[in-house]
Amino acid sequence: MEVYKFVMPEVIFGNGSIKQVGESCIRLGAQKILIVTDPGVVESGWLELVVQSCHEVGLSYSVFSDLTTNPKDFEVTKGLAHYLNAECDAILGVGGGSAIDVAKAIAILATNGGDIGDYEGVDKISMPLPPLVMVATTAGSGSEVSQFSIILDSEHNKKLTIISKSLVPDIAIIDPETLRTKSALLTATTGLDVLTHGIESYLSIAATPLTDVHAENAILLVAKYLRQSVASKLNEEAKKNMAMASLQAGLAFSNAILGAVHGMSHAIGGKFLLPHGDVNGILLPHVMEFNYISAPDKFARIVTLLSGEEKRWSDSGQDAVELVKQLAHDIGAPKRLSELGLTKQDAKKISADAIEDACMITNPRDITEQDIERLFIQAL
Amino acid sequence: MEVYKFVMPEVIFGNGSIKQVGESCIRLGAQKILIVTDPGVVESGWLELVVQSCHEVGLSYSVFSDLTTNPKDFEVTKGLAHYLNAECDAILGVGGGSAIDVAKAIAILATNGGDIGDYEGVDKISMPLPPLVMVATTAGSGSEVSQFSIILDSEHNKKLTIISKSLVPDIAIIDPETLRTKSALLTATTGLDVLTHGIESYLSIAATPLTDVHAENAILLVAKYLRQSVASKLNEEAKKNMAMASLQAGLAFSNAILGAVHGMSHAIGGKFLLPHGDVNGILLPHVMEFNYISAPDKFARIVTLLSGEEKRWSDSGQDAVELVKQLAHDIGAPKRLSELGLTKQDAKKISADAIEDACMITNPRDITEQDIERLFIQAL
Repeated sequence: MEVYKFVMPEVIFGNGSIKQVGESCIRLGAQKILIVTDPGVVESGWLELVVQSCHEVGLSYSVFSDLTTNPKDFEVTKGLAHYLNAECDAILGVGGGSAIDVAKAIAILATNGGDIGDYEGVDKISMPLPPLVMVATTAGSGSEVSQFSIILDSEHNKKLTIISKSLVPDIAIIDPETLRTKSALLTATTGLDVLTHGIESYLSIAATPLTDVHAENAILLVAKYLRQSVASKLNEEAKKNMAMASLQAGLAFSNAILGAVHGMSHAIGGKFLLPHGDVNGILLPHVMEFNYISAPDKFARIVTLLSGEEKRWSDSGQDAVELVKQLAHDIGAPKRLSELGLTKQDAKKISADAIEDACMITNPRDITEQDIERLFIQAL
Repeated sequence: MEVYKFVMPEVIFGNGSIKQVGESCIRLGAQKILIVTDPGVVESGWLELVVQSCHEVGLSYSVFSDLTTNPKDFEVTKGLAHYLNAECDAILGVGGGSAIDVAKAIAILATNGGDIGDYEGVDKISMPLPPLVMVATTAGSGSEVSQFSIILDSEHNKKLTIISKSLVPDIAIIDPETLRTKSALLTATTGLDVLTHGIESYLSIAATPLTDVHAENAILLVAKYLRQSVASKLNEEAKKNMAMASLQAGLAFSNAILGAVHGMSHAIGGKFLLPHGDVNGILLPHVMEFNYISAPDKFARIVTLLSGEEKRWSDSGQDAVELVKQLAHDIGAPKRLSELGLTKQDAKKISADAIEDACMITNPRDITEQDIERLFIQAL
């Protein structure tokens, strides 16, 4: 048995927990925080609650929201200048994966210097980061608890996957109420991202008993609550359980890493700036079918979890795949990469980037560039 | 829904992980550590590995091992003097619950001053503690990951239950190889302690989905591996799984707290200095029977977990109780408090102390002093 490690931030979970953000920053010794967020969060009104919470505890802040989905290296550079100019000493990310990943990237540069590209890969960060608090407002990325930050290298249109224990925030706040303002489509695609995190980390060659319990519960909760969460903005039970699914999937993949779906979707997202959740949801059943022979037992468990029937047992990979497809169909998620504008001509450049992605290392079945091309074409 | 929190240390788990202890302390900025351990650990040779690991990274240390089971306040005072005299700046606990709880208690006094009794109860610690690394050498206490420290007030023969997020160590190292040197009886009774942690945290009124996944897995693993672990010192598979069970039970109870078994056993341990695991194992079925009506659904799940039969379902409290009794019987654990020398005359003073214990607050069924007396007499 090899030695394995598990690390996670302190977690604060529940409706209204967003109001604890000011106090959480103070507890870490912050005097002036940079709030990194995106225009959507500002518009939805959640930033107001955050700012109010800072006022209540007398915490100074400055807001940086000049970022986009699939966040870019130059946005990180801008954010860093903002952090330095405003003389901040801690960073608060508020949003989905984009805002949180940029918050982490600014933190890296704030104490380690250099360019964000210098930190691509595993364990390249040497100096401790400033205190980090993250507020997750989408049940999706899991970045609020993870060792990951994904930033686009805008010169090469390639996503930089940065993995380091230093990127695990100090405190993660997950408030299911913030999910009320998400559109049905965003709920659907980010929900499939959660499912992908759960399934890929469960099948990862770096999975451990500590990650499995979270991955299994995440898969179960998505199967049980994603449909209802897409159906209604006001279904509090569904929002709460999807927030928990996202959190647990995040804990699982942060420590077990991911697989070929993410390896491919990082490549596709980098080249074509497509929404991460959409791409993952489309690729997932195809990659599952490919990976099936690596772990029939785990696929049998996935069937039980996805069907919600404790007594249902099937080690057919096809059954697991069908259950995923049915879910994606029910919630109206895109089914084919061609719907996103991709064509057969893109297969080669995608596979060349994808094979280099850090997530490929933990895919349970050995994979080649040819396999990736074939999977890409299947998913068109 | 209320807001709930979950906190745990960085975990390093696996055979040989004890060798990472020096590096782990250095990573936290330690220059000279106080190693808090007990004579049993010294004798078994594990301390030697720890010391070697310190040498390898050039880390200075001083060893304090002047402590006993059911560790006493005056042992903490002695340890503090040792820490100060040796000019240490970090603390490493190596052992079972006793060594680790003393290590934590020394850490409290090192930065907060006063007497250890000042910190009894919940959240009484205000100043941050020195860096804390814990190496668990018994699959039992879970203290290496928990918010708890239990120290005996030697003047009043009463256990002080100290609960604070500050007591969660920075790094917990769990090396299943260290379980090879435990006697069969100690393996049995500490194993029942793990089961008690799993069941009490699962039934606790402060349980959350994040604690449930760990509690459930801990119960499952104990049911599956404790017998084999008691049977043979060399069963590596059993040791590994019991170490994991202990870790997960620790994560669960640290965040969900415990119940009446622990409330009572703290009182009994305080008055009569009896082994904690023995007392818990005896009390567990009696308290379960009492608690049953509070959560028949969770008892049904416990039956599934303990029987290892996914399809077995019974919401009879008696079935769960019988499965626990059978396990205790199979591993030769003591069955009655009278075997430990307790008598009917002790019931009143035990119940008076027990009702005050912090663990009673989260017991799933409201409990009175009279209930405790009755349970105590039943268990005689």
